[in-house]
Amino acid sequence: MIYKENYCPFTREELLERIRVQMSDKRFNHVLRVEKAAITLAQENGVNEEKTSVAALVHDYAKERPDSDFINEIKLKKYPTDLLKYGNEIWHGLVGADFVKIELGISDEDILNAVRHHTTGAGKMSKLEQIIYVADYIEEGRTFPGVDEARKLANEDLKLAVAYETKQTLSYLINQEVLIYPKTLETYNAWVAN
Amino acid sequence: MIYKENYCPFTREELLERIRVQMSDKRFNHVLRVEKAAITLAQENGVNEEKTSVAALVHDYAKERPDSDFINEIKLKKYPTDLLKYGNEIWHGLVGADFVKIELGISDEDILNAVRHHTTGAGKMSKLEQIIYVADYIEEGRTFPGVDEARKLANEDLKLAVAYETKQTLSYLINQEVLIYPKTLETYNAWVAN
Repeated sequence: MIYKENYCPFTREELLERIRVQMSDKRFNHVLRVEKAAITLAQENGVNEEKTSVAALVHDYAKERPDSDFINEIKLKKYPTDLLKYGNEIWHGLVGADFVKIELGISDEDILNAVRHHTTGAGKMSKLEQIIYVADYIEEGRTFPGVDEARKLANEDLKLAVAYETKQTLSYLINQEVLIYPKTLETYNAWVAN
Repeated sequence: MIYKENYCPFTREELLERIRVQMSDKRFNHVLRVEKAAITLAQENGVNEEKTSVAALVHDYAKERPDSDFINEIKLKKYPTDLLKYGNEIWHGLVGADFVKIELGISDEDILNAVRHHTTGAGKMSKLEQIIYVADYIEEGRTFPGVDEARKLANEDLKLAVAYETKQTLSYLINQEVLIYPKTLETYNAWVAN
């Protein structure tokens, strides 16, 4: 894809290079698969493909940074201090979007929200946010139980895929007895609960 | 039991009569079974038995009131307005404690918190609060899957029973796809998550 709009100050190849140096080859290949899945969903849901490509490529930009980077940013930007109780899994999206903005010069708020909410979801999500949230879950390298059902729903109705992923994820986290960030419950209450 | 302290302005018999008129016979019998289970837990955990009896007997005092009573109280006392999105299941404890205080003249904050938190739990719960939360779950009339495990844990370690009940309840609610009050997640994060 040749970038023609202003979502990103780089060509796609330049952006890829900046992302590649931030992460393992394994994660970089995951990022490429998320881009592929996201562009398919963008085509099916009438969302700008270039914007979707940029959001997909940067969604895990901060995933391999040291905890100290996030802790500094949380304190510097005066995020709610309870965020400090969580870890990389929550920080790399919600706080990682700051690094995408500062270091990659990407300032489109829809793209940044897609990065912020790709793990926890949110009560309100734009179509782009829904696409990145779902593409991260169903990209072709994923093999967990339920992924085929998620893929089927994503092809039928993006909102149903968001609901399915949210319910599965929350159930999984409880089963694992791990700390759950309140935004994940907000997503469940908005997208799953009747 | 003969009440000798000042937790309640009535004798136990007078209190029973005031509770009986607020609810069906079926619920009244549940209340008596919760009292029985709670007193056993109080004896095992060194908690005042009279206080426990009062808390158990009043825990469902407001369960059969019309929604309009709760809605009025939520507006009058300026509770967070998002509480209005929930229903009797959440209101009868959190808001019902107000009616216990006003109409029964019970002002002990530990007893009122036990009423407030008997359904959702809370991040911090006194021993009395834990006892009412667990007794409501394990009273001898309960027959749902897992109740025997909950009874076993309650006899061994009250805190483990709180954790078990919280995890089971949250999983059940998600499976049912019903709205979950954020305090329930607060209880999970404090008592279940590692």
